[in-house]
Amino acid sequence: MSAITTHASSSGSSGLPRAVIFDAYGTLFDVHSVIAAAEQLFPGNGSALSQLWRQKQIEYTQLRTLADPSGGRYVPFWDITIDALRHAAARLGLTHALTSAAEKRLMDEYACLSAFPDALPALDALRERFGLPLAILSNGNPPMLDIAVKSAGMTGLFDHVLSVDAVRAYKPDARAYDLGTHAFGIARAAAREIVFVSSNGWDVAGAAWFGYTTFWLNRAALPVENLGVGPDREGRDMSELVAFIERP
Amino acid sequence: MSAITTHASSSGSSGLPRAVIFDAYGTLFDVHSVIAAAEQLFPGNGSALSQLWRQKQIEYTQLRTLADPSGGRYVPFWDITIDALRHAAARLGLTHALTSAAEKRLMDEYACLSAFPDALPALDALRERFGLPLAILSNGNPPMLDIAVKSAGMTGLFDHVLSVDAVRAYKPDARAYDLGTHAFGIARAAAREIVFVSSNGWDVAGAAWFGYTTFWLNRAALPVENLGVGPDREGRDMSELVAFIERP
Repeated sequence: MSAITTHASSSGSSGLPRAVIFDAYGTLFDVHSVIAAAEQLFPGNGSALSQLWRQKQIEYTQLRTLADPSGGRYVPFWDITIDALRHAAARLGLTHALTSAAEKRLMDEYACLSAFPDALPALDALRERFGLPLAILSNGNPPMLDIAVKSAGMTGLFDHVLSVDAVRAYKPDARAYDLGTHAFGIARAAAREIVFVSSNGWDVAGAAWFGYTTFWLNRAALPVENLGVGPDREGRDMSELVAFIERP
Repeated sequence: MSAITTHASSSGSSGLPRAVIFDAYGTLFDVHSVIAAAEQLFPGNGSALSQLWRQKQIEYTQLRTLADPSGGRYVPFWDITIDALRHAAARLGLTHALTSAAEKRLMDEYACLSAFPDALPALDALRERFGLPLAILSNGNPPMLDIAVKSAGMTGLFDHVLSVDAVRAYKPDARAYDLGTHAFGIARAAAREIVFVSSNGWDVAGAAWFGYTTFWLNRAALPVENLGVGPDREGRDMSELVAFIERP
């Protein structure tokens, strides 16, 4: 506790946050390779499939937690990702084309994503230049996150790789976000001292509602979600996050 | 209580459900007039706007309840509908075209929807031919539902018009579905004795998880949502619901 208190008081004087927590998919990990594979497998439909797949993936996580917050409808993100892929394919009339081999190809791509090119330099800067502890807080289940971190060349960069699987409740359930404060030994009431970074507008809203300081990595240049809560800062790429950490 | 017991035992012998509960928007009330107005206001973008508007409307309800099941982020469906419209317009680059007058026009259309042409005959059949009590169970807040029921010519057809506003939790939160069993004085454990009807696949899944017998009014001929639970019966229009009630 004394170490934490010291850190808090030093960060208070320096203006630095006590930690930075990252969403994973779309924020650190680039799903572009999945879209490319989808386009190869389903010419002319790759983009539509990827978009609907992602939409259904997120929707299914939220429906399952909302229907039973105690986790009775929870299934791991990997399984939801397959469920969502199959629905998206059916919706686009591609069920016949989604062979076992095609499905395996897409899921393999999903498992082994690259990092966005701006991610590693930013993570290094936050660690080396500012000495900030870092974490991932993701809907992904632990085996998915382990492989993704390795594939993206990010092994050893994070103090914590946190999966909502630990609470069987998907974001934006507050218990999911609370994994971050808990991992860093910080009370929820002090969540503002942590910066939460996500490319997903709804995730930023959930994190802001929870109490984090939020940075919306608005890679797709989308309008803000009208949920009555905005990000503390918005930027197009990770260099703008580093600038925000330096000059909040 | 004795009346309910009698009803239960008589329905047991007849094979009829004890009640039929309907979702409102897209199930009983046709939003086509909104799409037509959107196309007039934003030529070439009416369909895309309507689709994104509806998607965001549902997403915002679920995010708000998921982030705080106690209702701390709850706002009425009318307000969410405006929030979603503004986001959808921004997403499509139509913010400048969404003047106050255009917004009012669309929301007025949304308030005063027509009934689907198959709805009234089916409601009459369920009431007159089978003597079934009927209800609406909707995300819509009470003033919206009141106007919608009147506009659709459905005044007096329902024993209960139930809004999730009473529990400040949107579907598929179980407390929302429990409004139906509670209104009919039926224990949740006996929810199978009620038929829940919705055009929305996710709503059907939520109702099935809750315990209702479900009829998916699949007006748009969509594939089933991959949520590990199917509808008890699927049909394209309300005549198929009446057939299902007659021959389960």
